[in-house]
Amino acid sequence: MTFDCREYMKTRAQLVEQALERYLPASGQYPDILFESMRYSVFAGGKRLRPILTLAVIETLGGDIHDGLPVACATELIHTYSLIHDDLPAMDNDDFRRGKPTNHKIYGDAIAILAGDGLLTLAFQVLAETKMPAGGETRLLQIIRELAYGAGVYGMVGGQVADLLHEGKKADENMLAFIHKHKTGALIHAAVRMGGLFAGATEETLSALSRYAWRMGLAFQIRDDILDIVGDTEKLGKKVGSDLAHDKSTYVSLFGLSESQQKVNQLTDEAHEALKTLPYDTTILHSIADYLMGRES
Amino acid sequence: MTFDCREYMKTRAQLVEQALERYLPASGQYPDILFESMRYSVFAGGKRLRPILTLAVIETLGGDIHDGLPVACATELIHTYSLIHDDLPAMDNDDFRRGKPTNHKIYGDAIAILAGDGLLTLAFQVLAETKMPAGGETRLLQIIRELAYGAGVYGMVGGQVADLLHEGKKADENMLAFIHKHKTGALIHAAVRMGGLFAGATEETLSALSRYAWRMGLAFQIRDDILDIVGDTEKLGKKVGSDLAHDKSTYVSLFGLSESQQKVNQLTDEAHEALKTLPYDTTILHSIADYLMGRES
Repeated sequence: MTFDCREYMKTRAQLVEQALERYLPASGQYPDILFESMRYSVFAGGKRLRPILTLAVIETLGGDIHDGLPVACATELIHTYSLIHDDLPAMDNDDFRRGKPTNHKIYGDAIAILAGDGLLTLAFQVLAETKMPAGGETRLLQIIRELAYGAGVYGMVGGQVADLLHEGKKADENMLAFIHKHKTGALIHAAVRMGGLFAGATEETLSALSRYAWRMGLAFQIRDDILDIVGDTEKLGKKVGSDLAHDKSTYVSLFGLSESQQKVNQLTDEAHEALKTLPYDTTILHSIADYLMGRES
Repeated sequence: MTFDCREYMKTRAQLVEQALERYLPASGQYPDILFESMRYSVFAGGKRLRPILTLAVIETLGGDIHDGLPVACATELIHTYSLIHDDLPAMDNDDFRRGKPTNHKIYGDAIAILAGDGLLTLAFQVLAETKMPAGGETRLLQIIRELAYGAGVYGMVGGQVADLLHEGKKADENMLAFIHKHKTGALIHAAVRMGGLFAGATEETLSALSRYAWRMGLAFQIRDDILDIVGDTEKLGKKVGSDLAHDKSTYVSLFGLSESQQKVNQLTDEAHEALKTLPYDTTILHSIADYLMGRES
């Protein structure tokens, strides 16, 4: 029987959903609008790709995915805050995200900024509260550092800035790779390694997971560039052509559709290759890479 | 010889300054504007009260203040990010802070938002990289949780939201206490307890430090309300009367100047009282409380 990746991702996303429900402060406490606003964006129908990747790595390495849920969800909280801030009028000024009005369109810019700040801080709180097995404290501290690097100025935040600086300017391939690697790649990379660290991976395993994550993260983002041109507005939940509207350089604008998809395929091959050295059954990780290569939303 | 608190704070602030210099990413890397923007606000001449409090507690409990510098500086990075976001047009829309143009007036709103996000993330990175003595990992994780609670939606961010919701509205004493306790008190409380946790404080010592910190934090904030009316623009580095301009309820608007200063005095007495149970020489902590009660900037 072949592995059903779509089904796997669906069941894991449900686990993540339930965990996020527990980690997000309940509505009905003061100041309610803050908690509502955070919940609005966290439960706006994301794919939960980053937590699923963390769980997939934990599972592959024989760890307990239920115990690993806080580690998995931390990157989703970071991802969500980054979308809220990115959509602000001062940044990309987007009115819709996943088919729903963006956070600031509902709650106003000030609450949106603070909801983002709250989610970013909550990510570290949830992470620092993870129950680790005896002796696991050192690993949990490594996990926290991994998230801080992936999400911070050397990772996602740095990528956001580079992206902003190139709005309306032509970026060359190196710059585009820098932007993608930092803006989306770094957090995906962190999610994968955090799963490895949680499950007690060796340095060699972590290196192989890093190679897998970087390749897959870049493939994911180039696929995103492609979907922005050929995608289906309904499946994507946002207008296609939004990169064009923001005058952003993309792989498609630099290389065209066909060469861009070739790059996706090549990176996916390299992601598969990276897994070969691992002494585990890596079916799930292979399947996710293939799934992302062909995804339509 | 009496203890010279002003001199103590000056020398400790210098240590903090040098440490922040090491923790902040150097300029001259891409994207430079991000690192410049972060450095601009971090080195805009803050009093470094929160790190000094952390160091004072570590010193009082016999810990090594040099080893504790990352723990001390983390709250300053949080404090700085909160000022950058708070000054944004979408929030308080302030053009000046400590006598200098605010971050977004120099770098624009988008970079200011991202510099804030970067500093918030850096706080947890610096903290998670603290070198602890053997067996100190559990304590470092407690320190990280302490910061996340103090800075997040149950602390500072929640207070910011409450403050926003009451702009132009009259807040009663309970609400004003909620705002102050969360907006500024929670981070001061975290700074004090983080020092205690770093130095291996017992539960009893932590409780006493908590009482001290809450009283002192509220006294500090009421003194701030007073200075907004009677302060000297030059010493404060911001216009006096800015609370009035933002139509904010303050202790002074609710109780008048004289009763507000009485509250400062009473809270300071209670802060002193809280220290009495501690089996340490608490001269430094007493002096800081007295210093803050009478401060003019």
